[in-house]
Amino acid sequence: MTGHQSLTVHLGSNSYPIIIGHGLLKKGFSLAPWLAGRDCLIVSNETVEPLYLEKLRSCLTGSEINSLCLPDGEAYKTLATVEAILDSLVFNTANRDTTLIALGGGVIGDMTGFAAACYMRGVNFIQVPTTLLAQVDASVGGKTGVNHPEGKNLIGAFHQPRVVLIDTDTLLTLPEREFRAGLAEVIKHGLIADAAYLDWIEANLDKLLARDCDALGHAVLRSCEIKAAVVAQDEKEQGSRAHLNFGHTFAHAIESCVGYGEWLHGEAVAAGMIMAAELSNLTAAERSRIRQIIAAAGLPVQPPIVGGEALSDAMSMDKKVLSGQLRLVLLDGVGRAAVRSDYKVDELQRVLSWADNKAT
Amino acid sequence: MTGHQSLTVHLGSNSYPIIIGHGLLKKGFSLAPWLAGRDCLIVSNETVEPLYLEKLRSCLTGSEINSLCLPDGEAYKTLATVEAILDSLVFNTANRDTTLIALGGGVIGDMTGFAAACYMRGVNFIQVPTTLLAQVDASVGGKTGVNHPEGKNLIGAFHQPRVVLIDTDTLLTLPEREFRAGLAEVIKHGLIADAAYLDWIEANLDKLLARDCDALGHAVLRSCEIKAAVVAQDEKEQGSRAHLNFGHTFAHAIESCVGYGEWLHGEAVAAGMIMAAELSNLTAAERSRIRQIIAAAGLPVQPPIVGGEALSDAMSMDKKVLSGQLRLVLLDGVGRAAVRSDYKVDELQRVLSWADNKAT
Repeated sequence: MTGHQSLTVHLGSNSYPIIIGHGLLKKGFSLAPWLAGRDCLIVSNETVEPLYLEKLRSCLTGSEINSLCLPDGEAYKTLATVEAILDSLVFNTANRDTTLIALGGGVIGDMTGFAAACYMRGVNFIQVPTTLLAQVDASVGGKTGVNHPEGKNLIGAFHQPRVVLIDTDTLLTLPEREFRAGLAEVIKHGLIADAAYLDWIEANLDKLLARDCDALGHAVLRSCEIKAAVVAQDEKEQGSRAHLNFGHTFAHAIESCVGYGEWLHGEAVAAGMIMAAELSNLTAAERSRIRQIIAAAGLPVQPPIVGGEALSDAMSMDKKVLSGQLRLVLLDGVGRAAVRSDYKVDELQRVLSWADNKAT
Repeated sequence: MTGHQSLTVHLGSNSYPIIIGHGLLKKGFSLAPWLAGRDCLIVSNETVEPLYLEKLRSCLTGSEINSLCLPDGEAYKTLATVEAILDSLVFNTANRDTTLIALGGGVIGDMTGFAAACYMRGVNFIQVPTTLLAQVDASVGGKTGVNHPEGKNLIGAFHQPRVVLIDTDTLLTLPEREFRAGLAEVIKHGLIADAAYLDWIEANLDKLLARDCDALGHAVLRSCEIKAAVVAQDEKEQGSRAHLNFGHTFAHAIESCVGYGEWLHGEAVAAGMIMAAELSNLTAAERSRIRQIIAAAGLPVQPPIVGGEALSDAMSMDKKVLSGQLRLVLLDGVGRAAVRSDYKVDELQRVLSWADNKAT
């Protein structure tokens, strides 16, 4: 694969392109068409900045570039860190025509996007995601925000980027554990919306795990397409966008119970998808297949031992609790998600009890 | 006047009504049609809550009502206070279908609206403004946010309320100084958009200052109509909405220099309008008339003695500095505002020097 591919996230006046290719940063792919003015602030972290900041600068020739390096990790995804980004903008006397550029994973993207949403009631925002999770998930849909000590992503805004630049070469420097965590969302896209894509993932999992350039390019493109189609239907998550939360009600509870950052988000989603599959309208063979794919990707197939009651308590703070009725995104067959509340409560209790005892 | 009047702020799917009348709180005017779910959080301050919280509860029968009482004053319009509102929502395990209700002046409205914009990426919001300033200004247009130590309203979001309930009886308990500060924005509406309204204000200023019920009702309605028409043209302030900032570039600089809360916003706007009028395309008689109206309303006609250079520095942080070019909202005759950058720089220097020395 040479050159690049692109798709458009269709959101009316908020529509934007996602540009996907390998070596785009090294080649200095120009981001000039999407800058609002001359100056920009690149927000990154101590892990990613040394690897890619200088390459990203080459995509921004002619601009006045400031940069801010944050500590790395979900533990820093707080309002206090967003305040540090805002302080940096003020310190640089950034105006309304400034552009914030997120260089890093989902945490950097979520916080930089939220700062862009809040600075002067909204400035320009560009994403350069460098993790698989951020490329296939956070890059589509404009969800930004931070965690609250009592719940994940409780504080945030919808703020769409002007463009997303995905250089799949950045995945070559990603630690193995983080790469596998990203595969959880890739698998999710197959499960909720595209059985044929799940077949492809299953057939190409070895190539993906070997970070084969073409396989990565296809997975990132297809995952972005699936998510973009869902988001275009329902930008503000009034309805079908909830399908993307398959496994996430459990995942958020897991992350909250073990402490943010102990489990990677994708790892929690993997276990959460297994839990949600258990409550879904699937055959035993389908459940077994899902478990095998997730295990083959090197991801957890059961929750951590934090206690079923603790998980249950954490779920009651989840955004998908609607007026006291716990609705869950479940599968109605492979490739077809649905929001359901007609599952059996004792089945939910049984699944939660996996967190009491490893024997499943 | 009995019953109530209403107008609609036309913003597509974000359109909302403003309901204006006297005694609406005492009569328990029902807000039920605009609640998203059963529960709501009323955010007020230590001054307003004792006067109106119980009355407002009577407008919300059948709901589960929580309330939060904040300290009073612009000094508390900070991200930390918004965090306290968000903490209260989390503590009450508020869901996506919660409704935040702002009971108070512009500070309460701006912070509560910003919290509503950020909680779970946006929840329902109702405004019950109790100051003249909030009724004629903050109730229209969805600007929410907080101050940064380096500049006013630098952090915020656009988040439209579902309904605004204005009970003009709340103006009867307003301290004289705050009431007069609100008149600054009323006068501004005449100056920027409606010469006939300015005539009416001039002719009825005594009635307004005596807080005559009918005069207040007319002024609030007409001011909301003018602001609603401007905002409907330009919700996100890309163009003509800037006209509402007449006097505000100077006002923000004044507030920043004296410390937020020392001068009331309306007082700073009054002095700022005099300064902007000086740079405007007006006859000497028109300038004199504007000065007389503002003085008759008991408002300042000159900036505080903080130094012209300090004012000038503070203006460079203002949102209306676009790519280094200081654009100002000026008048092109009474009732007609325009964004201009073709004023004389030495005239601007002269006006700023009023802050060096009282002799004007």
